[in-house]
Amino acid sequence: MIEEKGILFILSGPSGVGKGTVRKELFEQDTDLRYSISMTTRDIRTGETDGIDYFYKSKSEFESLIEKGQLLEYAQYVNNYYGTPREYVERTLAEGHDVFLEIEVKGALQVKENFPEGVFIFLFPPSLEELKNRILSRGTETQDLVLNRLKEARNEIEMMDAYDYVVVNDHVDHAVEKIQSIIQSEHCKRERIAKQYKQLLEDELK
Amino acid sequence: MIEEKGILFILSGPSGVGKGTVRKELFEQDTDLRYSISMTTRDIRTGETDGIDYFYKSKSEFESLIEKGQLLEYAQYVNNYYGTPREYVERTLAEGHDVFLEIEVKGALQVKENFPEGVFIFLFPPSLEELKNRILSRGTETQDLVLNRLKEARNEIEMMDAYDYVVVNDHVDHAVEKIQSIIQSEHCKRERIAKQYKQLLEDELK
Repeated sequence: MIEEKGILFILSGPSGVGKGTVRKELFEQDTDLRYSISMTTRDIRTGETDGIDYFYKSKSEFESLIEKGQLLEYAQYVNNYYGTPREYVERTLAEGHDVFLEIEVKGALQVKENFPEGVFIFLFPPSLEELKNRILSRGTETQDLVLNRLKEARNEIEMMDAYDYVVVNDHVDHAVEKIQSIIQSEHCKRERIAKQYKQLLEDELK
Repeated sequence: MIEEKGILFILSGPSGVGKGTVRKELFEQDTDLRYSISMTTRDIRTGETDGIDYFYKSKSEFESLIEKGQLLEYAQYVNNYYGTPREYVERTLAEGHDVFLEIEVKGALQVKENFPEGVFIFLFPPSLEELKNRILSRGTETQDLVLNRLKEARNEIEMMDAYDYVVVNDHVDHAVEKIQSIIQSEHCKRERIAKQYKQLLEDELK
């Protein structure tokens, strides 16, 4: 009965906290959410589709979009750009769909600067010990790298103040349930909907 | 793992919107919530217990509490005072329990003034037509009174701006689900918990 705009939700948190697992489980349960599709300058690979896996752009196109403020965040890895295009996010929100972006802390802080109306959720490790175990269990990192990662994680946790919500990832199901509550309750926020509800009654009285 | 204070939730909305029904259903599902117990100067009746049904006070005791700012809201009906004692609410919150208060709009606005850290939820009718039907279906009111009630309801809806959330009561189950989401997500608000989470990690590093 009310035409509501979508909301951009940003899930972030330190490396090893389990952002990807939580995001996957959330998308299995909530089919109304839309992924934020990234933009990249790397070549399209067999089996990938433009506009589904990524938006593929040339380096000069990407750089021109950066200049125009058309990326909510971006970074460079191995000579290629990766980023979140503003246009896709805004169009999807205008169509009434929520957009969900899972991203590391540095990227989230860029998004916060460029899109402060987003809802920022910080995924918190149950303990530093557990975080260490999770990073170790990947088995891909040397002891030194693990210590570095942990130090970085502690710095990232200091960034928590830029976020709207903190969800502890003690158990994937609990974390997903809390994120779903956040999504639902954000849609009930008075400042988002009061105007439309009042209009609805005015229309009824005509 | 974290000792969290409770939160005071206030459910309010126009007469006839179905506050009582929603509150009852919510309490059947959520056994952790505590009722806000009212204070009154009317006589205790057979079967009632002081501190469970009401806190019973003499008129002079009640008036002295008013003067000391010890009531979050109060009103007078037929020579008796009824109100929400601050002390019970604050003690229950300090013990870590959420307190739930269902109240008409005037009372809610008093609570807002005296306890702005509460979370204020406005229950919204699906339509004015439906609100009229609900008031009529009680069968206790004359046509004139119903029109008066509706006019009052429209004024009360204008008060919506003092609230944090708006929940439309199109269906009791939907409304209850949304209120539960609001309760859960409010406990994830960064400004409530970030400090404690950071402390937790500090403690771990000692």
